[in-house]
Amino acid sequence: MSDTNRKFSFKLIATDGNARRGEITTPHGVVRTPAFMPVGTQATVKAMYPEQVRQTGADVVLGNTYHLMLRPTAERVDRLGGLHTFMNWPHTILTDSGGFQVMSLAQLRKLDEAGVRFQSHIDGQKYHLTPERSVEIQGLLGSDIQMQLDECIRLPSAREEVRRAMELSLRWAERSRRKFEDMGGPGKGQGLYGIVQGGDQPDMRVESAEGLSKLPFEGYSVGGLAVGEPQHVMLEMLDVTVPVLPTDKPRYLMGVGTPDDLLESVKRGIDQFDCVMPTRAGRHGLAYTRFGKVNLKNARHQEDPRPLDEESACQASSGYSRAYLHHLVRAGEGLAGMLLTWNNINYYQQLMQGMRDAIEESRFEEFYARTKEDWARGDIAAL
Amino acid sequence: MSDTNRKFSFKLIATDGNARRGEITTPHGVVRTPAFMPVGTQATVKAMYPEQVRQTGADVVLGNTYHLMLRPTAERVDRLGGLHTFMNWPHTILTDSGGFQVMSLAQLRKLDEAGVRFQSHIDGQKYHLTPERSVEIQGLLGSDIQMQLDECIRLPSAREEVRRAMELSLRWAERSRRKFEDMGGPGKGQGLYGIVQGGDQPDMRVESAEGLSKLPFEGYSVGGLAVGEPQHVMLEMLDVTVPVLPTDKPRYLMGVGTPDDLLESVKRGIDQFDCVMPTRAGRHGLAYTRFGKVNLKNARHQEDPRPLDEESACQASSGYSRAYLHHLVRAGEGLAGMLLTWNNINYYQQLMQGMRDAIEESRFEEFYARTKEDWARGDIAAL
Repeated sequence: MSDTNRKFSFKLIATDGNARRGEITTPHGVVRTPAFMPVGTQATVKAMYPEQVRQTGADVVLGNTYHLMLRPTAERVDRLGGLHTFMNWPHTILTDSGGFQVMSLAQLRKLDEAGVRFQSHIDGQKYHLTPERSVEIQGLLGSDIQMQLDECIRLPSAREEVRRAMELSLRWAERSRRKFEDMGGPGKGQGLYGIVQGGDQPDMRVESAEGLSKLPFEGYSVGGLAVGEPQHVMLEMLDVTVPVLPTDKPRYLMGVGTPDDLLESVKRGIDQFDCVMPTRAGRHGLAYTRFGKVNLKNARHQEDPRPLDEESACQASSGYSRAYLHHLVRAGEGLAGMLLTWNNINYYQQLMQGMRDAIEESRFEEFYARTKEDWARGDIAAL
Repeated sequence: MSDTNRKFSFKLIATDGNARRGEITTPHGVVRTPAFMPVGTQATVKAMYPEQVRQTGADVVLGNTYHLMLRPTAERVDRLGGLHTFMNWPHTILTDSGGFQVMSLAQLRKLDEAGVRFQSHIDGQKYHLTPERSVEIQGLLGSDIQMQLDECIRLPSAREEVRRAMELSLRWAERSRRKFEDMGGPGKGQGLYGIVQGGDQPDMRVESAEGLSKLPFEGYSVGGLAVGEPQHVMLEMLDVTVPVLPTDKPRYLMGVGTPDDLLESVKRGIDQFDCVMPTRAGRHGLAYTRFGKVNLKNARHQEDPRPLDEESACQASSGYSRAYLHHLVRAGEGLAGMLLTWNNINYYQQLMQGMRDAIEESRFEEFYARTKEDWARGDIAAL
């Protein structure tokens, strides 16, 4: 499916206020934006077959560099024909840099100018992840959309700490770009995104975005958000950051979020998202629907013959009673996670499709208002 | 899909030696025999969507009365429209009596002439399972093929113990039959099977089968085997039991078994099987293939680009590399169990289809020999 004549490009199809409808082309296909990218941490979107993920409308999935570099290793994936072949996903793949999970999962981390040394959480083996090594790993995986290594700090943090991490990330951005070009990434049609940092400090967000905009990245990510701050802080950071970013490049808000986060961020001009929420929640008995969240663990579902959403085209949403889903969750059956993950990824993709259609038809504000009303009305309305 | 005009019946289509090709008709469809029935313990065949189970060629699945009576309870399943509706399986369902799992899972069991008292392994709640209550529960579930309550003992056991349990099971058979008729089971087109006991004692097996044959059961099960005895003992018991059973009724060997057990037992005239082996093994990294078992945990698969069986029409068998399956198993990913269970159930159904075709075409001996050769040749031949 890979077409090396197909280079990374971004086309803006329509705008409606700050919301944008676009298309990213990569060697493995076209990504309709705004896009939600299901997370396939260990080369699998948990509890779903890849064909199912595709059928929900996903054009791209995310792979986690940290997990894949430890197991099965980037070199092995490369020998086996690359990540697309390995995980049976012939469409676009985006990878992160590994940095975020080094900071959250690895042991004995030591970060300096060169990069970050750490020990694997699996077997204690030692690694040294540098901006160059991260790009090298993502190249071995064959990722279509790659991320620079950055330092993502927790919020709140002191201003000096935010500045230090933001400036380090900018220097790492330059090194990442150089390595990406040395490895022939642009020639292979791949893209590398720079990552805006700056915590909850508007001036530093602007400084970071301006600095990155001078480098010829194929896209720009907004990192370091959804790390514990309230939603209004995240949205304020988008309000100051997005206007500084080039309009002709895609904008990716990393690790976000709830359906409401997606709606608010698209309204502010974000084009791409990833989040473990729909998959993780699905494995914990929580369903996302047009009418809000449904906690299937709750005893009130135990004799409810209604499906999650009888109007949905997704079998997981319309083909099983809440009573049955409740039973599966209570009994700890794997089918619960399979069905709820499927329902959730499908709902997220439906929400994105709704937003894409609305932007194209210049009715995003109406879609935004109606969607919020439906959520507020609650799931009883699904009758 | 239920058709109350369709009553339980059994038709013998062909025989080849002692092997039989037949069809069981129930209110929910036709079961082609010899049949392997995937186990859906808690109203789900673990890690598979019901549509997938059907697509592998399964005409019938098994539900476990013990599990279902505890959670969600037979009464709740009944209020929700019966087990077929509840678990989205509109085809034939067979249920066991609950007795086997009471003896293996429940706490503080006390068995006497009336039945068995026990406490739930989930919450300690007290239950009294009698032959009558078991039939009542299976009726509430809406099971097409029901089993009498019996006492299944471990092997080896002393002769007196084998006799006591066998005679008790015979008395329970009569009580079960009476209750089944009182509940109108035959009028609903359902079937109730008697269960042959007698441990590893040929004379008692014959006595049990003769006793049961006097009762108008719709089919006959062979129970109390595959409980720790060597395969040759199990096959010897079939050799003495099967000739005593009516030829115009289906014969079901309970809880069996490996692919080789199925082949050997069909050769001896068995028509139905159930076993957790293909599903449980799949969740533990073990694949069954035409060329024998493949343990995907083994490091020798880590860079093997071959699928489990490239000639298979099943996506799980032909669409994923062994290297990827190995990775999923090592990483503890749910997709490993999903793919290997699917592969295994598909292989079991393919094996049954192969046997059915061979019997119809009077070439069972040839099929038997070739299948054993393929297993012996080993999985390397799958190249």
